[in-house]
Amino acid sequence: MSSHCLGKKKKIVILGGGFGGIYTAKHLEKLFSKELCHFEIILVNKYNYFTYQPMLAEVIGGSLGIYDSISSIRSLLKKTTIYIRSISKIDVENKKITLSPNFEHTDLTIEYDALVIAIGTVTDFNNCPSGIKEHSLGFKSLQDAIQIKNRIIDIIETAATEESPKRRKELLTFVVGGGGFSGTEIVAEINDFCRKMIKRYTSISQEDLRVVLVHKNEHLMDKELSPSLSKYTEKLLRKRGIELRLNQSLESATPFSAILNNKEIIPTRTVISTVPSNKNPLLEGLPFTFLYNRIMTNETLQVQGFTDIWAVGDVAAIPSPKSKRIINPPTAQFAVREAKVVAKNIYNSYKNIPPISFSFKGLGSMASLGYHNAVVQLFGHIKLSGFFAWLLWRAVYLFKLPGASRKTNVFLTWTLKLLLPQEPVQLKAEKVRGIEHLHFNKGEIIFNKGDIGDYLYIITKGSVAVLKDPNSQESIATLGPGDYFGEMALLSHTRRNATIQCLEQCDIVSLRTEDFHVLIDHLPILKKELEGTKQKRINDNVRQLEKRFKK
Amino acid sequence: MSSHCLGKKKKIVILGGGFGGIYTAKHLEKLFSKELCHFEIILVNKYNYFTYQPMLAEVIGGSLGIYDSISSIRSLLKKTTIYIRSISKIDVENKKITLSPNFEHTDLTIEYDALVIAIGTVTDFNNCPSGIKEHSLGFKSLQDAIQIKNRIIDIIETAATEESPKRRKELLTFVVGGGGFSGTEIVAEINDFCRKMIKRYTSISQEDLRVVLVHKNEHLMDKELSPSLSKYTEKLLRKRGIELRLNQSLESATPFSAILNNKEIIPTRTVISTVPSNKNPLLEGLPFTFLYNRIMTNETLQVQGFTDIWAVGDVAAIPSPKSKRIINPPTAQFAVREAKVVAKNIYNSYKNIPPISFSFKGLGSMASLGYHNAVVQLFGHIKLSGFFAWLLWRAVYLFKLPGASRKTNVFLTWTLKLLLPQEPVQLKAEKVRGIEHLHFNKGEIIFNKGDIGDYLYIITKGSVAVLKDPNSQESIATLGPGDYFGEMALLSHTRRNATIQCLEQCDIVSLRTEDFHVLIDHLPILKKELEGTKQKRINDNVRQLEKRFKK
Repeated sequence: MSSHCLGKKKKIVILGGGFGGIYTAKHLEKLFSKELCHFEIILVNKYNYFTYQPMLAEVIGGSLGIYDSISSIRSLLKKTTIYIRSISKIDVENKKITLSPNFEHTDLTIEYDALVIAIGTVTDFNNCPSGIKEHSLGFKSLQDAIQIKNRIIDIIETAATEESPKRRKELLTFVVGGGGFSGTEIVAEINDFCRKMIKRYTSISQEDLRVVLVHKNEHLMDKELSPSLSKYTEKLLRKRGIELRLNQSLESATPFSAILNNKEIIPTRTVISTVPSNKNPLLEGLPFTFLYNRIMTNETLQVQGFTDIWAVGDVAAIPSPKSKRIINPPTAQFAVREAKVVAKNIYNSYKNIPPISFSFKGLGSMASLGYHNAVVQLFGHIKLSGFFAWLLWRAVYLFKLPGASRKTNVFLTWTLKLLLPQEPVQLKAEKVRGIEHLHFNKGEIIFNKGDIGDYLYIITKGSVAVLKDPNSQESIATLGPGDYFGEMALLSHTRRNATIQCLEQCDIVSLRTEDFHVLIDHLPILKKELEGTKQKRINDNVRQLEKRFKK
Repeated sequence: MSSHCLGKKKKIVILGGGFGGIYTAKHLEKLFSKELCHFEIILVNKYNYFTYQPMLAEVIGGSLGIYDSISSIRSLLKKTTIYIRSISKIDVENKKITLSPNFEHTDLTIEYDALVIAIGTVTDFNNCPSGIKEHSLGFKSLQDAIQIKNRIIDIIETAATEESPKRRKELLTFVVGGGGFSGTEIVAEINDFCRKMIKRYTSISQEDLRVVLVHKNEHLMDKELSPSLSKYTEKLLRKRGIELRLNQSLESATPFSAILNNKEIIPTRTVISTVPSNKNPLLEGLPFTFLYNRIMTNETLQVQGFTDIWAVGDVAAIPSPKSKRIINPPTAQFAVREAKVVAKNIYNSYKNIPPISFSFKGLGSMASLGYHNAVVQLFGHIKLSGFFAWLLWRAVYLFKLPGASRKTNVFLTWTLKLLLPQEPVQLKAEKVRGIEHLHFNKGEIIFNKGDIGDYLYIITKGSVAVLKDPNSQESIATLGPGDYFGEMALLSHTRRNATIQCLEQCDIVSLRTEDFHVLIDHLPILKKELEGTKQKRINDNVRQLEKRFKK
């Protein structure tokens, strides 16, 4: 750190700034505090803050402010060198980490002497059923929480001035897939937030609101809690007006509906999916042994086959000595305790002290159920629910929140929000995505004759019918993969002159009108093609009209 | 509102939820409080909150939380019907307003009996010098403030691990164009925020930071304040390390630099422009008389030539009876007082009472100068500066903030933030823009050989040289408007195999690699074209190499 340090420092590089990474760095700072002339602790993370995930659901409901669920990494780790970058490559052969560029187009390489992999898992919609990736909101990061909150407010505002009661109800339907911890917490928060908010809207009644939780097993949080607490939770959620679909799962999602595996179609504009997490793509091709997509370590958390690499947190799998069971579930309380072991073992490896082993059985689990309620299970058999459990939930998380100033802030915010009325204001972001992927179900209408021309559509899978008169159901053309439609209204700046209906499940790529015009203005080949298609379609129309007249 | 009201209500429609619109609705609610069976007050706004613009600069610095500068419109106006939509058309002939769709593709039409236009002005980069639209950040909305804050944190984080001292200084240079109220307030906040923040970064020194304010006249805020206060401000900003460029203006901006009209080139990644506002495009083609792009009203704020339309706030121009001078500057204190007159005159028009006239001379002006300092000028001759002026600034704005709970919140936040250390955490949004417009100066390099292939570029104006060897400056090809480049690395998933340098000022359209692949995968015509170009360029390369060998 200071100028009187001579010689090359040993670099201990930590990848990831979640519970595992942050706590490893914190322990390393302490262990090496007198040797920072010889050792440099480096942490790489995409964001400059640490997200306190157990509190994200509260951001949606507004019990916490946006910044209250995150802490500045730099404030937590004062003696660590911090790189705020995306990681693009882990090279264990040459002991190098490549980081993605930020304001330039050049990447950055850092070398390591010891490596700690703490990159967790990633949200992976790719193995999900069709439409989930395209039309559901995830729930993992702060960005996700903000997006869900804004969507809810946007929906309620739109519903408030929607004249059709059917469409109003559809807008006000929220479907959450997955009844584990995060799905249950989020459905409770959404329900509370919506029911409180719509009281301000004279045009919306409580009956218009529909909140549905879909869970594949017989009971909610069945992996985490005892059956009695699961049943308590189910009773409470039902009492608050939430519909439960147990033993069901999301089969598909479209812009208009959620489809369950018993073929029930729930008309909705908002599907939230707590998708199963998957292996981080950075790990592809690395010479590690994987167990259920996690890096297999030994009981000292060293990656099997390497003396200079450790793994910690959700990315690490510590197998039990006897069976292939993993002894560390992917939770914060385990990550924090693993971090301590990893830091100690890195220190020991430089001091030639034998490594220590990880052993921890877990203290218990808890889930917040929204308005002044929670369920808590301690040491396997102590079970709590209701207001006292909720107070305990808050106390524990406040205590576990890193950094004193963040603690004070959250405590004051919680107190303040209990006293002051909440204002449901929305940080509406402009819709800027140029190219979007869409999925539609059989029979769904992509646009109606007379609608505004706002997108060009390209079919990648399935087929659609072009209907001149939506009532007659008479199709004038069928389009399939590789065909595009919607260019007519965009090129002529008019409204849609036909209705497009899906003949089967369809995957579609859409391009906004602004981007469409930029592309065709500057790529002559594209303009020629589209103008040609437009002319051909006009000619076809004329010919069909002529035919009809002749009849 | 309630079910016992019979017959058709008269609709009073207010367009816009700024100071003018909100206060007009508030006064109308009071005036018509006993007649809401016969009159419906409707307000249309794009966002469901009211932005308290004088406080936006504080959001950047972090003295206020994100939500503290906004208030929920619904909480402020409990008896008004509120539409949260964009307005797409004002039809004064048929007395109809068309609103843009939100979750559907169909628009919504509302009729009016009386209309209040309070849509303010729009940020208009279109008449700005080249590159300003593409590469400068605006400062008008809450979104703008959040974006600037995130950019600053992003820049500082990137600079912290930048090894080249030259590039680090360039990253840490911030240029603000326009030294009126908002430009001056924002430059003071940015400077305070950055200087405080970089104290935490051992790799950045105060000398690395460069904050520049460019103003076209001889003194800052020369239109709003007396020369003595302007000079006080200039001295204070200079003392705090801000460079002033007076009698200068921004001539151009690129991803790498700000160019002043005396041809000084300031290398920077961040240009903030307080652009002159312009007429809202919604007013195009309407049969109103305009004065400096504002709707001309008479002294009762009725739009000239109409008995059922009023204008209020920045969009309205009240001419002085004698000259063509406008008597209402576009500020909040005028808008609030105009709103009262408009509401009264609408009420009077239904009661056959003669309208009242607007007359107000303004109380004075004030600008916050960041850390515990401000300048205030009251009634033309009372001038204050320093800590006491800053306290007055806060007191006045707190008093003017609408809504009691927001007042309490802001007061508590201000107090809290004075006591607690701030955490510079960044809500980093993913970069999602599919298609971007770029502007480059002569000699600038778009990408270097060996860089990552992340974009396809299409030239819309100007020309570039393709350099195989950046050191030799030997150009192997020149590309011009309609040509594209960068497809090679994208198609082959390799790094750039040449350097691209601008031969003159260039306008470029760029397409991200993800969007590029979606388009070519699904539009066969595009794929064929690009593959053809790639092959042609490879053949050209081979031929040139052969030529060289033969020599």
